[in-house]
Amino acid sequence: MKFFSDNAAAVHPRVWEAMHAADAPDSGYDGDALSQRLDEAFSDLFGTECAALWVATGTAANCLALAAMVPPHGGVVCHREAHIEMDEGGAPGFYTHGAKLMLADGEGAKLTQQAIRTLIDPIRDDVHQVQPHAISITQATEYGRVYTPEEIAAIGSLAQGRGLGLHMDGARFANAVAHLGCHPAELTAQAGVDVLSFGCVKNGGMNAEALVFFDMELANVVRYRRKRAGHLQSKGRYLAAQVLAMIERDLWLDNARAANDAAQEIAAACGARVFHPVEANEIFVVMSPAEQDALRAQGFDFYDWTAPAGAPGAARLVTAWNSDPAQVSALARAIAAL
Amino acid sequence: MKFFSDNAAAVHPRVWEAMHAADAPDSGYDGDALSQRLDEAFSDLFGTECAALWVATGTAANCLALAAMVPPHGGVVCHREAHIEMDEGGAPGFYTHGAKLMLADGEGAKLTQQAIRTLIDPIRDDVHQVQPHAISITQATEYGRVYTPEEIAAIGSLAQGRGLGLHMDGARFANAVAHLGCHPAELTAQAGVDVLSFGCVKNGGMNAEALVFFDMELANVVRYRRKRAGHLQSKGRYLAAQVLAMIERDLWLDNARAANDAAQEIAAACGARVFHPVEANEIFVVMSPAEQDALRAQGFDFYDWTAPAGAPGAARLVTAWNSDPAQVSALARAIAAL
Amino acid sequence: MKFFSDNAAAVHPRVWEAMHAADAPDSGYDGDALSQRLDEAFSDLFGTECAALWVATGTAANCLALAAMVPPHGGVVCHREAHIEMDEGGAPGFYTHGAKLMLADGEGAKLTQQAIRTLIDPIRDDVHQVQPHAISITQATEYGRVYTPEEIAAIGSLAQGRGLGLHMDGARFANAVAHLGCHPAELTAQAGVDVLSFGCVKNGGMNAEALVFFDMELANVVRYRRKRAGHLQSKGRYLAAQVLAMIERDLWLDNARAANDAAQEIAAACGARVFHPVEANEIFVVMSPAEQDALRAQGFDFYDWTAPAGAPGAARLVTAWNSDPAQVSALARAIAAL
Amino acid sequence: MKFFSDNAAAVHPRVWEAMHAADAPDSGYDGDALSQRLDEAFSDLFGTECAALWVATGTAANCLALAAMVPPHGGVVCHREAHIEMDEGGAPGFYTHGAKLMLADGEGAKLTQQAIRTLIDPIRDDVHQVQPHAISITQATEYGRVYTPEEIAAIGSLAQGRGLGLHMDGARFANAVAHLGCHPAELTAQAGVDVLSFGCVKNGGMNAEALVFFDMELANVVRYRRKRAGHLQSKGRYLAAQVLAMIERDLWLDNARAANDAAQEIAAACGARVFHPVEANEIFVVMSPAEQDALRAQGFDFYDWTAPAGAPGAARLVTAWNSDPAQVSALARAIAAL
Repeated sequence: MKFFSDNAAAVHPRVWEAMHAADAPDSGYDGDALSQRLDEAFSDLFGTECAALWVATGTAANCLALAAMVPPHGGVVCHREAHIEMDEGGAPGFYTHGAKLMLADGEGAKLTQQAIRTLIDPIRDDVHQVQPHAISITQATEYGRVYTPEEIAAIGSLAQGRGLGLHMDGARFANAVAHLGCHPAELTAQAGVDVLSFGCVKNGGMNAEALVFFDMELANVVRYRRKRAGHLQSKGRYLAAQVLAMIERDLWLDNARAANDAAQEIAAACGARVFHPVEANEIFVVMSPAEQDALRAQGFDFYDWTAPAGAPGAARLVTAWNSDPAQVSALARAIAAL
Repeated sequence: MKFFSDNAAAVHPRVWEAMHAADAPDSGYDGDALSQRLDEAFSDLFGTECAALWVATGTAANCLALAAMVPPHGGVVCHREAHIEMDEGGAPGFYTHGAKLMLADGEGAKLTQQAIRTLIDPIRDDVHQVQPHAISITQATEYGRVYTPEEIAAIGSLAQGRGLGLHMDGARFANAVAHLGCHPAELTAQAGVDVLSFGCVKNGGMNAEALVFFDMELANVVRYRRKRAGHLQSKGRYLAAQVLAMIERDLWLDNARAANDAAQEIAAACGARVFHPVEANEIFVVMSPAEQDALRAQGFDFYDWTAPAGAPGAARLVTAWNSDPAQVSALARAIAAL
Repeated sequence: MKFFSDNAAAVHPRVWEAMHAADAPDSGYDGDALSQRLDEAFSDLFGTECAALWVATGTAANCLALAAMVPPHGGVVCHREAHIEMDEGGAPGFYTHGAKLMLADGEGAKLTQQAIRTLIDPIRDDVHQVQPHAISITQATEYGRVYTPEEIAAIGSLAQGRGLGLHMDGARFANAVAHLGCHPAELTAQAGVDVLSFGCVKNGGMNAEALVFFDMELANVVRYRRKRAGHLQSKGRYLAAQVLAMIERDLWLDNARAANDAAQEIAAACGARVFHPVEANEIFVVMSPAEQDALRAQGFDFYDWTAPAGAPGAARLVTAWNSDPAQVSALARAIAAL
Repeated sequence: MKFFSDNAAAVHPRVWEAMHAADAPDSGYDGDALSQRLDEAFSDLFGTECAALWVATGTAANCLALAAMVPPHGGVVCHREAHIEMDEGGAPGFYTHGAKLMLADGEGAKLTQQAIRTLIDPIRDDVHQVQPHAISITQATEYGRVYTPEEIAAIGSLAQGRGLGLHMDGARFANAVAHLGCHPAELTAQAGVDVLSFGCVKNGGMNAEALVFFDMELANVVRYRRKRAGHLQSKGRYLAAQVLAMIERDLWLDNARAANDAAQEIAAACGARVFHPVEANEIFVVMSPAEQDALRAQGFDFYDWTAPAGAPGAARLVTAWNSDPAQVSALARAIAAL
């Protein structure tokens, strides 16, 4: 009973089905009919014209987006605990040719307009200091927190006023939309987001994410850079198929809701142990080593985590689109019984 | 009836099967059981200890290998018409951080020891000129030509003598082995090859190639660089599954033989039109525009190609693991009837 | 009696003088009065508004210019024997983050509109091939050949039509202007050049070149990149002083004329030995090893060179602003007597 | 009466003299007799075999050193307020091809073994996190603080134990040696330093620093990289001349002592205002805006600085090798009288 991460879960049957349907011969790279349908499908989904490209991983999606917005001598404002800073093995430095990640603070790994100002206002506009060219936020955040449309719009407004691009790492975008119940455009195009890394892999896909460009010019640069990064697969139709299956007939939202609901059930059982409000599919809980051992002895697997100051220990629990309801309930009961 | 390329063909049923079997939960990235089996599986295949990593595309495989062998200020000797020079959108420049491709000549896109010497011997060993650090050859070449073990060993010996790494782009390695009927180690480990991009995608895979390291130290660098390039997929087990399916029970050789045989049937019908000896699954033929039109009118699709001097036109025909024998025969008859 | 190169000659007394005058305290980097005067001084010289930055070497000047015009995934058209391709240790790859030098042919290391078209017209506009973003020409060329205003304008017109930037490596720009007797703007701003590397070091300077931007936007990018490349010297006023001394009171033209005249005297003595028309300060002559030995025995030093096909050997002779007239005449006589 | 920085001060007469002496013809680049003498001169100075290269700026020196020690996918531990992090316009990212600066804390911009451990011990040795490959310390620090030989040796020992390179940014190395009165080798070779950026520009030079390699292998890489960065000047003898003048007959120590002594005189007058112990030639003092105005009204120029928490304001005062004793005394009196 694994609650490590959603990023290694099985592939959803409808995704498999779409991939098999793509087995019919078609053009290579992204010249096939499925890949060619992405722009329209995402424009429909977001209710605004946009361009969409498939790419195999979230790291590649994030970094291709950043590299299109930021020159090598520039910087990207992100949270100190953002995935691009902590967990991508230096990929932003590779893709941007050495641009700098400029680290801001904020509760729950959320940036605020104020936190960004505190970071960038003291930067002298001279050549000795790296100048910011973009902001990157994660929705839902690395702590399972969700930005409201208003919070994003406030950051988008700052970005626009300073001439900065705005990127959203949406590895768990679906979970955020499912949580808020809003239209996806409220969190993106309408809030000033230029590019979204639209996550599928953590949500039932196999190895396809979508880069969605509300600033269409950026897409034309990324087409070249995707190839240059070795990410233009020759049988791209199998990636397009995954992405299309995910957004058609609301599979993305259904899957995210399933994961979110499972997280809520566990969170309820955790009570005051929870130290980040549970708004997506991650639960961070105070838990002593002995308690962790007890759970593991019952067959539950999960990651240790850094505990809040003073706490004896902590754990991260992550649910997925296919978390078994029986196992979820069992975990909830086990935690409640600690 | 498409004879464009082998790189967009369908996925082999046994590959599909292996991918489905990988749906069971396992660790993320390359911590799963399948990924962990790659080293051993390839060591068995080549009869020598080696390390193997999956990666989604041939471009990424080639460039990760080169970047591990060549410092940013160095150079890579390759053929003027090598895939890395002509068709990878500048990916070597990206991955190597600006190292230089140093272009040598050779019939059929094959390098020779002599051609390499002609290129590198005049380079002054001073800081004003880029110094070579590696050689990259393609087996089978971009013109479907195959290096014999002796030809590779001659290049390997030069590489060793000059302290240069040796990389093999084996997007169609299987076709070369099938053509020669030799042991794969004769073309690689025994001939001085340090790293092989072992192609699967053109040979019935979906989106997994294998990087095979006979110089094991290089693998440790590439592990970090693969992540940094956004190529470490979180559900890597679906890639490992493809690669393992390909090398188990000789699927790679069976598929390559099928493609090679189809190419031979067409080549025989082409007779004197053929202007590169057909040793793998590509046939380059002199064909006037009118003749091409006639074939296309019969439903055959293929690429125009640059004709030899004096010829009225040319075409490139490529067969694949799943080329329909009836269609192959039909094409052969149609060409014979021109 | 050295005729190796103009790049190691002594510093002109007026340059020394200007440097000493700069010893007075002033602001650091390029905030000093001299550096601040560059834009105006070059705008006066060229008769058109331009921006000018000092930089220590021609390699840095060339590569900063190229990096501002070409994205990492793009390419720069240059001559196969251009300095940026042959003699800068891969610096263009470093500064442009891996962009590609695309090599065209042309007599005397001169590009023509036609040669550029032959190179770039076959490039498919797809992501698999590197797309050109700029052209770089050398004036005078690596073989001491000079482009006329019309020849540059033809290239400039092509560049504009294709949306390509145009860079001029003017390490010996002064020699070209002195040879043609034209206005410097005819060779640059009026002919479509966006950025000029205006050489001083080979012409009596110590270690300052000027980057002159006719496309002013590029200067703003290069200001950041110059710092990022470690080329923003804190005592920049000593570089500004050199550059200003060079262009004030026509020192640059006087020095270039002296070098050109010396070259003409030697060329006249060489007669039919000369195999590149002498239009600047370099003389390429057919000369057998025995003849070279004879000259060296008389105390003349110079580089061996690659001879035209069939010739027994060749030498490159370079004059400088301070070539001693007596030595020049002695060399001319010695060659005539061979 | 400027106390802004030592980096724009005049050039010392003996440096001028050496530069003039270099005007005699010699080989280009670093083939001249002066450049060829550097290895020996520095080996004598440090009492141990080392290699030395001139380079025009401290930024280039630091970043060439780091790039030779750290692969693009690695990281460099430095202080959060190190010059390479704060003031080099992202140059480390450029030179290292995107390696990461990993920021540690420490009083007075000094790292300690413990602070480094606190930073790097939690880094998981997996490919998702950037791994440290080197440590960079500044001697004297950005706050004019000096590491003792023991403090450096403690860091050097950690570096060696973890397989990390150790770089010292010695822009004010002379001030540190003058302060400590120790042998320069005690702070470098004997303490585990692999490369030292030996500063001259802030100490009476014009535009030459020395990179001193105690790990000789690194020098061979940097030779290529210096050229590739456009930092191999063709008239390199004028840089070698500066560096040699600086270390011969103890000019570097005499100049540093003069600056240090001036700083001590001012510091004594500042009394309790001083908030970083004055160990080199920088004085950081608490000073209200009104007090700053009063000093400026008397003709003293200096930078505002960030005050310690609770203080009404602060200033940074920097002395140089040529600070006028009368002006120094005047400033000391003026501050005492505030």
